[in-house]
Parts: sequence; structure tokens; C-alpha cells
Amino acid sequence: MRIKIINPNTSIEMSKNIDLIAKMYKRKDTEIVTVSSQIGPSSIDCYYDQAFASIGVLKEVSKSVNEGFHGVIIACFDDPALQASLEYCDIPVVGIGEAAMHLACLVGAKFSVLSMPKSSLNSIQEQVRRYGLEQRCASIRLVDVSVSELENNKQSVKKELLKEGSKAIKEDNAEVIVLGCAGLAGMDKEFQNALHVPVIDGVVAAVKLMEGILDYGIKTSKVLTYRKPAAKPLKGFDKLMEDSVSV
Amino acid sequence: MRIKIINPNTSIEMSKNIDLIAKMYKRKDTEIVTVSSQIGPSSIDCYYDQAFASIGVLKEVSKSVNEGFHGVIIACFDDPALQASLEYCDIPVVGIGEAAMHLACLVGAKFSVLSMPKSSLNSIQEQVRRYGLEQRCASIRLVDVSVSELENNKQSVKKELLKEGSKAIKEDNAEVIVLGCAGLAGMDKEFQNALHVPVIDGVVAAVKLMEGILDYGIKTSKVLTYRKPAAKPLKGFDKLMEDSVSV
Amino acid sequence: MRIKIINPNTSIEMSKNIDLIAKMYKRKDTEIVTVSSQIGPSSIDCYYDQAFASIGVLKEVSKSVNEGFHGVIIACFDDPALQASLEYCDIPVVGIGEAAMHLACLVGAKFSVLSMPKSSLNSIQEQVRRYGLEQRCASIRLVDVSVSELENNKQSVKKELLKEGSKAIKEDNAEVIVLGCAGLAGMDKEFQNALHVPVIDGVVAAVKLMEGILDYGIKTSKVLTYRKPAAKPLKGFDKLMEDSVSV
Amino acid sequence: MRIKIINPNTSIEMSKNIDLIAKMYKRKDTEIVTVSSQIGPSSIDCYYDQAFASIGVLKEVSKSVNEGFHGVIIACFDDPALQASLEYCDIPVVGIGEAAMHLACLVGAKFSVLSMPKSSLNSIQEQVRRYGLEQRCASIRLVDVSVSELENNKQSVKKELLKEGSKAIKEDNAEVIVLGCAGLAGMDKEFQNALHVPVIDGVVAAVKLMEGILDYGIKTSKVLTYRKPAAKPLKGFDKLMEDSVSV
Amino acid sequence: MRIKIINPNTSIEMSKNIDLIAKMYKRKDTEIVTVSSQIGPSSIDCYYDQAFASIGVLKEVSKSVNEGFHGVIIACFDDPALQASLEYCDIPVVGIGEAAMHLACLVGAKFSVLSMPKSSLNSIQEQVRRYGLEQRCASIRLVDVSVSELENNKQSVKKELLKEGSKAIKEDNAEVIVLGCAGLAGMDKEFQNALHVPVIDGVVAAVKLMEGILDYGIKTSKVLTYRKPAAKPLKGFDKLMEDSVSV
Amino acid sequence: MRIKIINPNTSIEMSKNIDLIAKMYKRKDTEIVTVSSQIGPSSIDCYYDQAFASIGVLKEVSKSVNEGFHGVIIACFDDPALQASLEYCDIPVVGIGEAAMHLACLVGAKFSVLSMPKSSLNSIQEQVRRYGLEQRCASIRLVDVSVSELENNKQSVKKELLKEGSKAIKEDNAEVIVLGCAGLAGMDKEFQNALHVPVIDGVVAAVKLMEGILDYGIKTSKVLTYRKPAAKPLKGFDKLMEDSVSV
Repeated sequence: MRIKIINPNTSIEMSKNIDLIAKMYKRKDTEIVTVSSQIGPSSIDCYYDQAFASIGVLKEVSKSVNEGFHGVIIACFDDPALQASLEYCDIPVVGIGEAAMHLACLVGAKFSVLSMPKSSLNSIQEQVRRYGLEQRCASIRLVDVSVSELENNKQSVKKELLKEGSKAIKEDNAEVIVLGCAGLAGMDKEFQNALHVPVIDGVVAAVKLMEGILDYGIKTSKVLTYRKPAAKPLKGFDKLMEDSVSV
Repeated sequence: MRIKIINPNTSIEMSKNIDLIAKMYKRKDTEIVTVSSQIGPSSIDCYYDQAFASIGVLKEVSKSVNEGFHGVIIACFDDPALQASLEYCDIPVVGIGEAAMHLACLVGAKFSVLSMPKSSLNSIQEQVRRYGLEQRCASIRLVDVSVSELENNKQSVKKELLKEGSKAIKEDNAEVIVLGCAGLAGMDKEFQNALHVPVIDGVVAAVKLMEGILDYGIKTSKVLTYRKPAAKPLKGFDKLMEDSVSV
Repeated sequence: MRIKIINPNTSIEMSKNIDLIAKMYKRKDTEIVTVSSQIGPSSIDCYYDQAFASIGVLKEVSKSVNEGFHGVIIACFDDPALQASLEYCDIPVVGIGEAAMHLACLVGAKFSVLSMPKSSLNSIQEQVRRYGLEQRCASIRLVDVSVSELENNKQSVKKELLKEGSKAIKEDNAEVIVLGCAGLAGMDKEFQNALHVPVIDGVVAAVKLMEGILDYGIKTSKVLTYRKPAAKPLKGFDKLMEDSVSV
Repeated sequence: MRIKIINPNTSIEMSKNIDLIAKMYKRKDTEIVTVSSQIGPSSIDCYYDQAFASIGVLKEVSKSVNEGFHGVIIACFDDPALQASLEYCDIPVVGIGEAAMHLACLVGAKFSVLSMPKSSLNSIQEQVRRYGLEQRCASIRLVDVSVSELENNKQSVKKELLKEGSKAIKEDNAEVIVLGCAGLAGMDKEFQNALHVPVIDGVVAAVKLMEGILDYGIKTSKVLTYRKPAAKPLKGFDKLMEDSVSV
Repeated sequence: MRIKIINPNTSIEMSKNIDLIAKMYKRKDTEIVTVSSQIGPSSIDCYYDQAFASIGVLKEVSKSVNEGFHGVIIACFDDPALQASLEYCDIPVVGIGEAAMHLACLVGAKFSVLSMPKSSLNSIQEQVRRYGLEQRCASIRLVDVSVSELENNKQSVKKELLKEGSKAIKEDNAEVIVLGCAGLAGMDKEFQNALHVPVIDGVVAAVKLMEGILDYGIKTSKVLTYRKPAAKPLKGFDKLMEDSVSV
Repeated sequence: MRIKIINPNTSIEMSKNIDLIAKMYKRKDTEIVTVSSQIGPSSIDCYYDQAFASIGVLKEVSKSVNEGFHGVIIACFDDPALQASLEYCDIPVVGIGEAAMHLACLVGAKFSVLSMPKSSLNSIQEQVRRYGLEQRCASIRLVDVSVSELENNKQSVKKELLKEGSKAIKEDNAEVIVLGCAGLAGMDKEFQNALHVPVIDGVVAAVKLMEGILDYGIKTSKVLTYRKPAAKPLKGFDKLMEDSVSV
């Protein structure tokens, strides 16, 4: 099976790391191709960034069937354009945010999300509620740095994240930690050793869930919410979407 | 005071109608300018359309301060890019969806949303929950036609909408009807006469709430969720956003 | 348009202040008349006070149409007798509690209510839930003094309120502050300058929303919850209500 | 033990029936005294009626300790002035609405409330939510007649109520029926025989719970919500409350 | 009336204490018989213990009708096998957990549960939600010792419990304390004196509620959730259940 | 990897079918061993059956590590003894109920559970709420036959289930169907063809999720809720559990 992982920002470095992690956990018979978004922001910190990132994601999603993929993973914790992709695509699409949270529910009573910056609190709360998982979410613990600062000061940000993770366990009664940013991909085992609870990396979670979905052969329900969008004029984006699977 | 109304789709006809309604209810000392989105879909029926419409909205939002406006209204019931606009903008931004629902709460115990197409059920439910108003929402009643079909068959769609509105009142115990699409702007009084409950047009609601907000002089809180986005590379959109207020 | 503001307690001083604030923010073409309740408690601190205050409010509400008013505002944050007034009245009625909270939702993701005394916690929580806004309410922060102590020690109580407001922002992630008592009317700008988030005064919010409702011409839904009460013997209160619009 | 039952309306006939039912189920060593409210409406159909009824209830509550009672029951399903009474009183106060609903939870998974008129839907929903029992409430089924119509046409209203009760069981999966009006007191066994599920009469429920509370010797918590109201001018009601236990 | 109290663990000492407390508060005409479970764990600290305790409870429940009892009380705060007992039994069954929580709702706005060990947090949260009382529960405060440690170090554990109870009142705004373990039976008055809020012992609550239920003559609804289980092979337990009332 | 599937009832036939389905979807390198419970009921229709089934499940769970398994699946939709097993076990345990519901969330906005008998409504509702998924569950649709009747009249029960499934999609807006009973294992594709929405078989879902969990190497959090139970006397079950991994 062939899975396309879309990094919704334009950072090649982040895509490389995502690709590395995904390949570390994939099954032998799974082929992973990771791409960076061709248009959009260099990192995703807010609703504004999410809006532009969505277009880059949809461009990549639109090509995925023609490129021969069986499933698509959107590798940003906010799951930008996930619902638009579920509408557009006939093949399964999974976001790393939803994957991490649903998997976390299987290994502990309550999870906390560990992420950044502090201003993303409302966005993540809405996401948790959108997935219907507020009862399972002990807290959202945030360090107040941007994603690019994480890239530049990994060690010091990591230290702060670990401090918040520890508080999540002690003060909020979290039993599982969900890494709330694709920029944290690959830090799960290190955090797990430090915090003594399972730590879920959304990239791994999404790869494993996608393999399961493809093995099972189930597809996105097209009966109501995720019906295929009707073709209509899309001024300014017609060219962008034209080499895609026709809508 | 000067208010910019952004129609998030590219339909000039719909913008004209929105403008007409807004001017009918504005105060004498309010200046209204209604614009159509320059890029994006011709109508908004689904998450996919919302994603592209968001970019057109943000383009218009970004110019609004330089253009001398004091407030911005996003005139699509889904409130596309509302939260990104609240981040980007220093002047107040109101969506017609949130305006209609909050105003409805002041004139009845429960409201129902009347809209189309049927596949938008989940999107509107998420919106109601995002605004925290699920306890006030009796039901979402949808006619299964696209927005463009509404434009082409107004009379027959209206009849179906009235049937659903009547069921909302009788079966779901709705006491107020919220028109769930800017394409329905101007039908409020006709529906009100037929249904014998208050019917709220989001365009009017947003104009009246914006006038109140501007009179009061309150502005969007910039302390957490709606902090101004940091400047960063925005590949493929840099040119689009460049003549805007610098981020 | 003529708006009657009812101060549900018998304090003339508080009514004067409410009147001052309302007139400061009203439009030129709006006429405001503020009255103190003729019967009931001198201030409202608890359910017991609310029960007696409700009668004074209903007396004033019952005269409002004959007095030529177009809308009524109940100027106590608890909104005493709001629902009974919505039943009784054919003209719109708005409470400053509901007005402040709905307006707050338009300028920030979460609001906190700042009020007194501490024992009013449950009453305000019930009110927030009655309006269906618990998802938007970050916290209710209370200083443990009575309303009359506020009147007598404004400076020291204000200091404590600002401390709680600051905690609401830092610890509870509030982005907007709602002043939870008509006795705090007029302190909004001072608090806003100190706290750096929008601060909403319910009196102003109610005036602006009422102006919008009257401009729009919508009225309370009379189809279910707020049907006009049937005339029936009202022992001990018949005389009180007799010069009112006949029920 | 001596229990005072307050019928919050002025109907002597209804008080007599309540008294009859209460005495039928009381223990031998329990003394029951039932009184009609001396002021207020002849029956309670809406928020407006509840507001006036609250004053009559508080008058009776205020005398209860001096009269030598150990507990007070408010015998209207809406529990008017219950919270104000909990504040005012040092002896336990129970409302028949809360009593019926809590007892229902012990004999079935979900209950439905059967009452009238249809316009009381919102009031009862708010009450269920105020007690935190919405998850246990299958539905609120209402016949659209006033309480006085019930008094005048008992047989035909009873038939309609039974029809709604039957629908509550078959369509809403109710397992217990709660009689939602003191005017229905004494109909429980007849309804139980017809509907084949437990039917709870709030008057009986309140008597049995009050006996339990008094046996146990627990009292209303005075630490926060139900602190004793401070003495303060109560214009127009001072005389009414003067022969009461001093506040 | 004859009430059987089942202690779901095998500790004779705990049963004796439960019996003592129950008899202290029972009415003169009530006969109480307390039994220890014949099979299962010596104390109940977790889901694993609850599973085995359920079998012992069901064995005792199954004999109760033949033994001439009119009602059954399950005297462990977790209410193990309560729902299975409600299915199996034709006579009323009440758990001390549900009894304590429903009674607490009548004497204060919010209650906190005080119990042990810390790992039981999720189990008690689920129980509160199962009874639909999460809105009434201020917090669950736990001391991290096992139930057997409580038995062995009563004084020191009591001290810690009082500290948590005090925090529940001051920090979580609890107004009533619910003792969350049958091992705490009899400590209510001592805690009440120390904490100045009502403290509810589930054993007493269950006895008083059961007396009320039996006086009233209502029985468990058998129409849906608690239908009698069909007879079927029960390998390994047939002998255990054979001398019971035939299913 | 070696996965043990425990059928919590004693029906060999049902175990054989579960084994067949699991092996149809397992990966080549996965070894599946399916066992029937050695003690407990022949089928599971109610809380009473669940209580006894839990013991049989715990017996099998307790042997699983010594038997060399890496993961355990509990193959009854009610997930009996799941939480006790998570406590007891050091290797991952997944229930088919939770697996089916979490997987369903990835392929549609809302799912409905299709099961039997009608009396299991409350048990499944509690389960959905326990997993925190009530916002994702459109409805629970039940046919009123026992599990053993399903075994005996597969064709006619299937027809009724399909009718309910169709209603779930049309009336409740379900987009995914979850088969709510291990007795339905293997009917997914047939139902999918008839209903045109994804249909999830919990056995397959659990196998795929367990493979993912084992690939990822995450384990149940032992920090709070699922701490290992302390060793203690377990009267009547000591022998049953003695050949197990020592607790």
C-alpha cells in the first residue's frame, strides 16, 4: 500500500523528519512518500496560517489519486483542510491530530495535549470538541513559543514541554501525553522515558491507523457530510486545481 | 462609521442583494460598502468551498484598515475565515452566522437554523458548538439543494424552506428562525409573516451588532486566541497579501 | 425610540449612575428613561433579594407600554424577572446580564464574569447555563463583599476586583471581562486600561443591543415559552398590577 | 417531626388534595400541616405566575420556624422560591419537583416529566438542568391546557396525559413517569396501572425524602450558595415579612 | 419492613460497622440485616476488585426475596453489581453511592466526594456521570491509600481526608461532602463538626431512601433497562446461583 | 506478534466465527488465537450476563502473558471487564466496542450502533459516554431479540437490523454503521453493500488497532487509573486465578 504524507507547511526540514519517523514505524509492505506543501506558510501557529495552509494541502490531496496513492495523511496537528479533503477524496484521509487522540484513548483514561504556542489553546480546544473527545482530554498544556522557535531552540523548548507534561500528569491527572505538533515528531520515546506514561506521536499514530483502514478496506462515508463537492467556478484557483483529479 | 461587508463568494448578484438589505437597516450615519470576494468559489456549499473562500475573505480583510473602514462583516452564514480575520485585524470583525444566532437568543428561548444543502448539517452543528450555543439551538433544518439552485429556483426552494421552518416550530419547538445562508438575505419578513415567529437575517443582525460594537468602542481581545499573526514566508500568497496592512 | 431602563433595586443613586452611563453611549435619536424599582430590596445579593426585586420589575414592566416605551432594559446583572417580563410584554425586553455575555462572545473566545459577593457563584453559573453560554465562560471571579459594601468602599473593592480580573486572564484564560453587577456600571474603561482586554458593561451592551433590536423591528417570540400569561386572580398583587396594561 | 407543606398558589381545594395525599403516605409519627399561599396567583402556569407565587411562599417559609416546624415542603412542581427559601431558612426545605426527579432516578434509568401547559417546556427544561439531571430525563411531555383547565376537566385532561405518558415510554424510552404538577397529586397509582412503569408523585416523594432528611439530622449547607440573606430595607414588603423569624 | 444490607467485600469487621450505623439511623419498625459477601475480595480498591465483588453481591441479592426481605442495599460506594441487581431483583435495590449523591443534592448546590485511593478517580467520575450528576459534583478528592490501609491507620488517614475535605470546600466550592467509601461509615458527624458543611454517609442515606421507597410502594421499572434476565446456561456459576430465586 | 482474542461467552460456535473473521483481516505476520470463556453465560444480553462474563474474561486475561501473547482482544461489544483487564495486564488490551467506535470516527462524521436486544440501550449509551464519544454517536438502533435468537434466526434478524440501519442513516443522519455485537461479526460487507455507508465490525477494528499498537510499542498507562491491583485475599476465586501471572 502507498501512503502520501502531506506536510501542510513549506518547511523541507520538517517534512524530512516526518518522513524519517513514518518510515521507522511503517510496515515493510507500506510505501511512504512525504511531501511539503508547495504553497502556504513556512510554519503553522494560528488560524491565519491554517487558512493558507489548507490550500496547499488541498492541492496535494487533489493529485494523490492520480499519483497512485491509497491513502493520505495530513501531518500537522491542527488537521488543516481535513474535512475539505474528506469531501474531495475518494481514498481515506487521516489527520495526525485525530489519529493521536483516538489512539491515546486506547491506552489510558485521559490524555493531555502538549504543544505551542499558548495562543493555540482555543484552536486545539475546538478541535478536541469537534472530534467529540473533550471528556477524554485532561488538559491542553502549551509552551509560549512559536513553531519556528521550536525549530531553532529545540533543547530549551523541549525542557519546557517536559515541565508542562509533568504538570499535566501531576496536576491534571493525564495518563497519556499527545504530542500536539508535527514539529515534535520523533520526541515520543524521549518524553516517554522522562514522563513514565505513554506518549503518542501523531505521525506514527496516523501511519498505523491508515495501514489498518487500508487493510480493512473501509472508505470515507460519502452519504452526507463528506459528499464530493460539486464542480463550480473557483476564481483564482482554477489553474491550481486543474491538473488534479477532476472534481 | 464605515463598515465593509465582504461577500465571501464571487457572485456579484448576491453581493448586490446583501448590500441592498444592509442599507435598508443601517443607521443614517453608517456607511456600508459591500464587496464580492475577488478569488474563490462562486457559491459556498461545503468545507471545500469554505477553504478557498477563506483566502478571498482574508485578502479583503487585509485591505480594510487602509481603506478607512471601522468594522468588517463577513457575509456568509458559515463565517469563513472569521477567526483568522479576528487574528489579522485590529478593527472589529463580525460574521453573519454568529450575529444571527446571538441576536436570536434575545427574542426567544430556542432558535432553529434554516438552510441548505443537507450535507452542511455537520458544518453548521460544529459552528453552533464553536459558538457554544447548542443549548439554544432547537434544530438545523435543511433543504437538499445547493446554493446555486436556490438562486435559480427561488420560489420552489422558498416553499420547501417554509415547510421545514414550520416543522422546526411544531416538531422541534423552535421559537425563532435563523436564516442560515446569505442567499436568503431579505426573505426574513416574508418568512416571519408566514411562520408567526421572529425570523433573523444574519446580514441585518451583523450590521446592527457592528453599529453597537463601534458605538461602544470595544475591540477584539488580542491577549490570547486572536493575537496578531507573526510575519512569516507565505509561499504563493505573498503577492496576494502584499498590498495589505503589513502583518 | 424610547427605552425604559428599570433598576430592579430601590437605590436612587444606582439608578442615577445607570442613567448617566446609558445616556453616554445612546444614539442621539434614542430617549432613555431610567427608573428605580418602587418596591423591593435596596440592593440585590442573593436569590431572596431577586425574588422580591422581581415584583418591582414586573410593576414597572407592566406600565411601560402605556408610558409609550418601545423597549425595556432590566439593569441588574442577575436579570431578575426577565423571563416573566418577556411573557408579559409585547415590546422587547433585554437584561444587562444576557446582553453583556452575548456581546462579549463577539470580541473574544472566552469571557469571565467579575462580580460579588462570593455566594452568588451558583446563581451566576445557573444564569450562564440558562443562556447556554457555559462553553464561552472561562470563569466567574467574585470578591466577597455585598453590593452595599461596594457602594461604600468603591476604591478598595475595585482594587480586589482588578486582582480577580487579572487572575481570570492569567489563570483562567479569559479574553474578555464582563462586569457582573450594575453597581459596577461605568468602570469598564478604567478596568480595560488596567487589564488590557475588552471589558463589557452590561448597561451599555443592553442599550446598544436594544437599539439594534428596535431598528430591526423584531419582537419576542410569543409562540411557546413567552406566551402572554392568562388573566387570573393574583391575591395581594391585584392592586399593584391594576393600572398596568391589562394582561 | 412536624412538616409544613406550602401550596404556592391560593387554591384551597388544591391544598386540601395535597394534604390528603401527604397524610396518606406519611409515617405515624410525622405531623403534616398544609397551607395555601395567602398571596399570589390562583394557579401557576408560567414564569409570571412563579414570580408572584414566590412571595407567598417566602411569607409562609418565614413563619415556619416560629410555628415549630422541622421541615418545609414547597408543593408546586416548579419549586418556586426554593433557592430563596434555602437561603432564608435554617430548617430543611424540599421542593416536590426536585424530590420527584431524584427519587425517580433510583427506580429506573430514565424518567419523563408529564405536565401542562405546553408553554412550560422551557421552564421545566431549565429546572431539570438546574438540578443537573438532563442525562436522566428522557423527555418532557406536555398537554396544552392550563392548570385551571385541569381542575375543571380532570377526566379529559387525564386521558390526554396518559396518551403522552404512553408515548414517553414507547417513543422516548422513559422508564419512570414523574407527575409534573401538584394538581396531579394522587393520580400516580392510576397512571401506574395504566402505564406499567413506576409513576412518581412529587408530594409523596418530598414527604418521604423530608422524613429521611430529618431522621438523618442533616441541614442545608450555609457555607456558600445558601448563606442567610443580610437584613436590608425591603420596600413594600417590610410589613409582609415583619412577623417572621428575623432575618 | 425488612432490609438486607450487602457488604460487597468479605470483611466481617466492615460489615459490623455498617450494621451498627444502619441500625443507629433506621426507624423503629425497620429490620436491618447486614451480611458480608461470601465470595470476592477482602476490600474494593479498583475495577478488578469490583468485578469479583459483583459475583458475591449477586449471590446475596439472588437469595434476598426467599429470605423475606423487602429491599436490598449494596453497601460499597462504587455500587458494584447495582445494575445487574436491578435487573435480577423484583424488590427495590439501592446503592450507597447513588443514595449519598442524590441526598447531597437536596442540602447544597454542589457536593464533593471524599475517598481513596487516588487511582479510583476515573471509576468515581464514571459513576457520577452514569448517575447524570456531573453538574452537581464540585470535585472528587482522594487520599492515596488503599481501603485496607484506612482500616489499619484510621487516625492518620482521617487527618488526610479532612485536609482534602477542607480543600474541596475552599478551592472547589463544595457545599456538601459525600463520604466515598463504606469504610468511612460513621465518620460523618465528626467530619461535619470539623468542616462545617453537611457530610453524607451513604449507608445512612441508603437506609433512609429505602425506607421512603418501601413506604411509597414504588418498584424498579421493568420495562426496558432492568428487564429480568432470561434464564440461560451460566457455566461455572450455575451451582452458585441455583438456590436463588429462579431467574 | 501473537494476539489472544477472548470471546467472553461460552459459545464455541461464536468463537469459531470470530476467529475466522480475525484471521481473514490479520496481517501475515500476526498470529491470532481465539478462545471461548471457560466460565460464564452462553451469551451476553444484559448487565447480569456481563457481570458473570467478566470473571471468565479475567481468567483468560490472567493467563495471557504466560501463554506468550503480546496483546489481548475482548470480543464482545460491551467490552466486559475491559477496565479490570487494563489494570491487571501489562500487555495492551483492546475491546471490540471501543475499537469499532474509534475507527468509525475516522471515516464519517457520525456513527450509529446497530445491535440487540432493545433493553441494552442504556448499557450501550453508558458505554458511548464512558468512551466520551456521545457527540459522534447519531443513535443506537436496536432490534428486540436476544443474542441467542440472532444465532437461531440469522436471516430474519438480519432483515430487521438492515431496516434499523437504514432508518439510522435516513432519520438519525448516521454516516457510518457500527455492528454492536460480536454475534454480527462477518456481516459488515453484506450490510455495507445494502446500506451504502461504511460498516465497522469491531473484531476487525480491534485486530487492526492492536497490530498498530504493537507495532508502535505503546502500552497501557499504569500511572493512575490502570495501576496494577494489589494482591489481596479473593475468597472463592483464589483457585481460579492462581495459575495466572501473579498479581
